[in-house]
Amino acid sequence: MQRTEISKYGEFGLIKHLTEKFKISNESTLYGVGDDAAVLDYKEKQVLVTTDLLLEGVHFDLVYVPLKHLGYKAAVVNFSDIYAMNGQPKQITVSLGVSKRFAVEDLEELYAGIALACETYGVDLVGGDTSASLTGLTISITCIGEAEKEKIVYRNGAKLNDLICVSGDLGSAYMGLQLLEREKIVFSANSEAQPDFEGMDYILKRQLKPEARKDVIQALKEKGIVPTAMMDISDGLSSELIHICTQSNVGCRIYEDKIPINYQAVVMADELNMSIVTAALNGGEDYELVFTVSMADYEKIITVEGVGIVGNITKPEFGLQLIGREGEELEMKAQGWNSLK
Amino acid sequence: MQRTEISKYGEFGLIKHLTEKFKISNESTLYGVGDDAAVLDYKEKQVLVTTDLLLEGVHFDLVYVPLKHLGYKAAVVNFSDIYAMNGQPKQITVSLGVSKRFAVEDLEELYAGIALACETYGVDLVGGDTSASLTGLTISITCIGEAEKEKIVYRNGAKLNDLICVSGDLGSAYMGLQLLEREKIVFSANSEAQPDFEGMDYILKRQLKPEARKDVIQALKEKGIVPTAMMDISDGLSSELIHICTQSNVGCRIYEDKIPINYQAVVMADELNMSIVTAALNGGEDYELVFTVSMADYEKIITVEGVGIVGNITKPEFGLQLIGREGEELEMKAQGWNSLK
Repeated sequence: MQRTEISKYGEFGLIKHLTEKFKISNESTLYGVGDDAAVLDYKEKQVLVTTDLLLEGVHFDLVYVPLKHLGYKAAVVNFSDIYAMNGQPKQITVSLGVSKRFAVEDLEELYAGIALACETYGVDLVGGDTSASLTGLTISITCIGEAEKEKIVYRNGAKLNDLICVSGDLGSAYMGLQLLEREKIVFSANSEAQPDFEGMDYILKRQLKPEARKDVIQALKEKGIVPTAMMDISDGLSSELIHICTQSNVGCRIYEDKIPINYQAVVMADELNMSIVTAALNGGEDYELVFTVSMADYEKIITVEGVGIVGNITKPEFGLQLIGREGEELEMKAQGWNSLK
Repeated sequence: MQRTEISKYGEFGLIKHLTEKFKISNESTLYGVGDDAAVLDYKEKQVLVTTDLLLEGVHFDLVYVPLKHLGYKAAVVNFSDIYAMNGQPKQITVSLGVSKRFAVEDLEELYAGIALACETYGVDLVGGDTSASLTGLTISITCIGEAEKEKIVYRNGAKLNDLICVSGDLGSAYMGLQLLEREKIVFSANSEAQPDFEGMDYILKRQLKPEARKDVIQALKEKGIVPTAMMDISDGLSSELIHICTQSNVGCRIYEDKIPINYQAVVMADELNMSIVTAALNGGEDYELVFTVSMADYEKIITVEGVGIVGNITKPEFGLQLIGREGEELEMKAQGWNSLK
């Protein structure tokens, strides 16, 4: 494979080379890459801003994450934060720190993933920064989105008796990660070994190429449902529910048998002798949405495809209860993924 | 000195601890830290977005940069990009990657610097992300600002015969860096040695605690001047003029004896046997403004304090000319600071 040293381009040449194929598709993008700042026009809409810093060895492992997938995922997880406010992502900026290990072709792969994500979700790349790094790859993405003021959904609006809803399924991304880690260990012991991913394409995809739930936000809009509180599930359902309950000053009750789990994730958990419920509650990286809706929206919410009711909001003094399959009560704790521990 | 391990707080606790003292002062900040995204309201104003990634060992050296200064500078250089569009910075997000070497007290210092910058420039901290890093400190800042559509100044508007103006003086930040590097070498040879900074407080301050030229933007507004093109000088005057001339499709003529240079910078350059003009043209990190104004604004611009005329815009075929003290013509080249080389 061709290997072009990054120094051939220099900073400005490199940014230009990597970004010139990106097209601007949003009316709110007045000016993108190429000046001191991007210029956006949000008119009467509110502006949403979210940011994420991804560090090699902490947030991703290039041994098993292809750069194109990494670019796609890095962009999508930011879009997910904007959807979680009931907004629409419109622009991103991408800053990279790259060590000499990386060639221009590597960054082209990374940007190809970002470009695919931008195209899929209708988002414009409007700026960024590329610089040398002494060690590894650093990716910092900021996403800007729009929302109507009255439709923005915060974490703090859950009310007593609201229904707690979850999109898609939980724990699959975590089980995909466990599978990749297992095969990495096998490979490091025997470099002739071929990874054994048979029948596990779904959980691998959930880990390597997650999607943000634009479709769910669209469906809620079409049904006329505005959630009372919402988050995306990046650190695990338990952790997100703690945020919602703390900020809303409520408790919650979740039914274990209602937690949506995919069959492949169950099989993988069995193989590894892990609890799939623990993975679903604490695994993280699913980028599904957890949200609360008023009881009055019950008839509407059950018609939304890919969304299930997993419990309900209770009084704060009940805390966060998990009701097991036998009816036993457990207290939910956040064991969510935490890079600082 | 007390040393509290970062793991004591965990990610969410740490962000809360570091940001809870920040106050919101802008009307456009509807919601700051604490949800999936910040919520801003820019009404009829345009939104400006800029971002910067700073990596330890590449962009800063903690041997001689105090963390509080680093926080201040990291914020201010982003404000500078917004002023360079003729806008006003209003919000920032701060993401940190921190290795185990750093204690909570270190991050408090860094945030104290960010807080001071925010207070000084009237900017709100609205979000961010803190995570572990395997090596050193990574700081990613995104700044959001506002501007009136008709008043935004791009790089591409310079016209034939426009006057080229520069604020403050150039080369001081670079000479400050050279001084710090010299004393670092002295110190590494003899750890008993005390650094010799006497009489060099100005160039040190320019390197360690630069300011963004909010005052110049304000003065231009008061005089009714809208520059035709503008940039902040982060990579050196030559490099910025190349951007302006290329994007505006013009040439320029700069007079060496008009380039504003501080006395301390001259002394330092002499001591180190360096060319102060080269430092002024290519040194970078001055965060002054370079801008072009129509000849019709001549009478007004000469009344703006701290701004000097250094040359004028010519036809593109003349390229970028530097006129020396003896009237000799030289071609200007960008040797600006480039972390990728």
